[in-house]
Amino acid sequence: MTYQVDLNSDLGESFGAYTIGQDELVLEQITSANIACGYHAGDHNVMRRTINLAVEKQVGLGAHPGLPDLIGFGRRQMNVDPDDVYNFIIYQIGALQGFAELHRLMLNHVKPHGALFNMATKDPAIAQAIAEAVYQLNPHLILFGLANGELVKAGEKVGLTVANEVFADRTYQPDGSLTPRTSPNAMIHDADEATRRVIRMVKEGKVAAVDGSDVDLTADTICVHGDEPSALQFVKQLRHALTENGITLKRVGS
Amino acid sequence: MTYQVDLNSDLGESFGAYTIGQDELVLEQITSANIACGYHAGDHNVMRRTINLAVEKQVGLGAHPGLPDLIGFGRRQMNVDPDDVYNFIIYQIGALQGFAELHRLMLNHVKPHGALFNMATKDPAIAQAIAEAVYQLNPHLILFGLANGELVKAGEKVGLTVANEVFADRTYQPDGSLTPRTSPNAMIHDADEATRRVIRMVKEGKVAAVDGSDVDLTADTICVHGDEPSALQFVKQLRHALTENGITLKRVGS
Amino acid sequence: MTYQVDLNSDLGESFGAYTIGQDELVLEQITSANIACGYHAGDHNVMRRTINLAVEKQVGLGAHPGLPDLIGFGRRQMNVDPDDVYNFIIYQIGALQGFAELHRLMLNHVKPHGALFNMATKDPAIAQAIAEAVYQLNPHLILFGLANGELVKAGEKVGLTVANEVFADRTYQPDGSLTPRTSPNAMIHDADEATRRVIRMVKEGKVAAVDGSDVDLTADTICVHGDEPSALQFVKQLRHALTENGITLKRVGS
Amino acid sequence: MTYQVDLNSDLGESFGAYTIGQDELVLEQITSANIACGYHAGDHNVMRRTINLAVEKQVGLGAHPGLPDLIGFGRRQMNVDPDDVYNFIIYQIGALQGFAELHRLMLNHVKPHGALFNMATKDPAIAQAIAEAVYQLNPHLILFGLANGELVKAGEKVGLTVANEVFADRTYQPDGSLTPRTSPNAMIHDADEATRRVIRMVKEGKVAAVDGSDVDLTADTICVHGDEPSALQFVKQLRHALTENGITLKRVGS
Repeated sequence: MTYQVDLNSDLGESFGAYTIGQDELVLEQITSANIACGYHAGDHNVMRRTINLAVEKQVGLGAHPGLPDLIGFGRRQMNVDPDDVYNFIIYQIGALQGFAELHRLMLNHVKPHGALFNMATKDPAIAQAIAEAVYQLNPHLILFGLANGELVKAGEKVGLTVANEVFADRTYQPDGSLTPRTSPNAMIHDADEATRRVIRMVKEGKVAAVDGSDVDLTADTICVHGDEPSALQFVKQLRHALTENGITLKRVGS
Repeated sequence: MTYQVDLNSDLGESFGAYTIGQDELVLEQITSANIACGYHAGDHNVMRRTINLAVEKQVGLGAHPGLPDLIGFGRRQMNVDPDDVYNFIIYQIGALQGFAELHRLMLNHVKPHGALFNMATKDPAIAQAIAEAVYQLNPHLILFGLANGELVKAGEKVGLTVANEVFADRTYQPDGSLTPRTSPNAMIHDADEATRRVIRMVKEGKVAAVDGSDVDLTADTICVHGDEPSALQFVKQLRHALTENGITLKRVGS
Repeated sequence: MTYQVDLNSDLGESFGAYTIGQDELVLEQITSANIACGYHAGDHNVMRRTINLAVEKQVGLGAHPGLPDLIGFGRRQMNVDPDDVYNFIIYQIGALQGFAELHRLMLNHVKPHGALFNMATKDPAIAQAIAEAVYQLNPHLILFGLANGELVKAGEKVGLTVANEVFADRTYQPDGSLTPRTSPNAMIHDADEATRRVIRMVKEGKVAAVDGSDVDLTADTICVHGDEPSALQFVKQLRHALTENGITLKRVGS
Repeated sequence: MTYQVDLNSDLGESFGAYTIGQDELVLEQITSANIACGYHAGDHNVMRRTINLAVEKQVGLGAHPGLPDLIGFGRRQMNVDPDDVYNFIIYQIGALQGFAELHRLMLNHVKPHGALFNMATKDPAIAQAIAEAVYQLNPHLILFGLANGELVKAGEKVGLTVANEVFADRTYQPDGSLTPRTSPNAMIHDADEATRRVIRMVKEGKVAAVDGSDVDLTADTICVHGDEPSALQFVKQLRHALTENGITLKRVGS
């Protein structure tokens, strides 16, 4: 049996004179780039540069739309209307598609950012608005959402290919949701343990929840971060371990 | 000999809770809609509604990108870099194209807004940045610019179809530029005179400058406004007069 | 026994090229102006004009701070941190105080806007952040909040003078909260009934809830609107009825 | 004879999730802090933190208002109206004064940022709008402007105390203006030479222009930067040299 998985990371989150992240280094390690679209982060100049870099590195191009909240970096839930969500998803994907178009390329995937991602994981109406917007704009786009969450369900329902996303550094509740960051045991700090868990998720489709029970999930793509040197180091270790264990790293949909 | 001309108007300039213009009424009278893209005016919800209305009325869909200056409505010149212009043109057209895509339609034209339009009329570097962005994004887009200005020249140079725009209610200088609004004789207030001038521009390719000399220009499209009842009334009169004089009203490029 | 009440209205909510409201007409009818401060609406030019008008009409000057959400007009709840609320309250009041300073005047009151007002009515942590910010900035400021809500409680606790606000056109629940706008019986459409209810709130400190029971409340200030001709007409009728019934219209704190 | 000079630096230019500068380290070295006010950089949370830090370090508190251009960091000239400038100066100083008020302190000075500073140096109408806004808001505020520029002239004319600012790392034209950054000889890269020039400006009121001629100027305050380790190192060297040469470092106005 062969295994494959995608590694995705949020990129292009600089803005104007402000720089965040080490995008060039991260792009060496991942297979899918989620590129901010100017609402929670990013701007038209950053988007151009990030698309260009991702094309050069042959990484999958993805839109990373967020809430209209630059000052909060899209991390604060807002009481947005599903129609509004539908429209700002179209706007942000459309804008980023413009930069892909300059390379005669279509975007490969869409992953909502931050609070919008969390809202779409729990709230079926928000999930449906996003799924419909993505499908109606371009039915070939792959929709990224938390494994077992509402977003991937909504995506499948409208006819999209979805990618179930898992987290290497987060613990899970017995119902398959992530342990909230406010809980003391939310994070997995041991890199080896995190790596073992990821390999089991990819190969067996299972992860141990905080109560010891097993949760079933599909691991199509793993979310990784590269903002700090230690994070980037972990990604390299994870890549190595995945490959050693016979798991091919490939962009979703390829 | 047959004559045809396009009537264009700026639409979709409402924002959030704020409403400007009478877009539904104006759309009954024009052949090309220049739709704001969220930088100087407009937002994702307004863009969706405006595209939907314009499609329903079978009016040509155009992007109306502006400077990133909502508080100034894009009317203040800014010292923007040509690369920056290139990128925000791609961003704004891309975003609007997303909403056209929902109807499986491509945008038909691009007309820069306000201060950006004026800068592109005079400054070859800004004009070239816009023309290249439009061409590289989609070479089928038609670029609107002031007749005889730098923007239409740059558009032709990169290989775009351009539309020379004329103004019914403005006077011209002997060099073909518009008399600045700060001059006392900038505007033509008499509707009959404005109508006669437009007909001559379309049929003869000439307009009398403020010093009495004739300026040569091509009138592919006429800019009209519909914000106020009297403006809308003038558009109706102009349409009637054009038709009476054997001039067909057709969207540019059709 | 003598009675007095304040009439307050939200003003200065225009922005850039966008105009909302009939501020000059409303200012003739009210005793306290809640002036937007540039976060949910308003801008530095609008603030200057509105302060100048309110000074000219001798209306109480108040800050009307809102959530940082211009596109949503501050009407959407956001998951803001109390520290963040504290700081944006200081920022917005400080900015408006600058324009009052030009007249050597201090602001008289503060009333949060829209979703922030609603959050402060229910959430003690948000209410406390607002009350502390107002008190620590200027302990003479009067804090407006829904009668019986968390905001006036928090205001009293920190040592501020508060103004209990009542609504003429809204129905009440038995617990003293407003019936949500989504309920069919949320609004009172009959102007005479609304007027009678206001007079009883001012004189008796009671209002009939939707179940027929009486709610005790203090009516220091009445929120009125003037955006539409009919709303302004109602304000005139209300003023007349209040005066006829021996109730003096006076700005809170005077 | 005794000499004194002020060292000022731009601070508080972080925004939301974005960090710029090493404010804590810089505050150890300077006597006046120019704090961004949310238009070109900074936000209400950053402003609170920066005011608190500056108070703790007993550094002079100054407003650093800029153009409404976050994406351009206030570095692009915009065609703003003097009335608009007047109003956004009031707004920004007022907002920052709110945070100083929490310490029962008044701001000490005002220095416009970036493109606004450059516009105010050359354009008498912009300079006058700023000077009048500052004076009418608080006549005790000290206005910082380029030595010999229009801003200090306008400040003196309205009755403000002004501080003539000089630059350690820039060359001067014979007319006293700074050599534009686009010129090859705009910058002084040698730290020792920069230091010698500053000492001469403070003690003799003279600086050698690029053509070798001497320019007369008053050096009340020196602009220093601390964004990078080498810049901070230079500030330390400059402080040492100034003190060694009998020049006291004191905040302007003290």
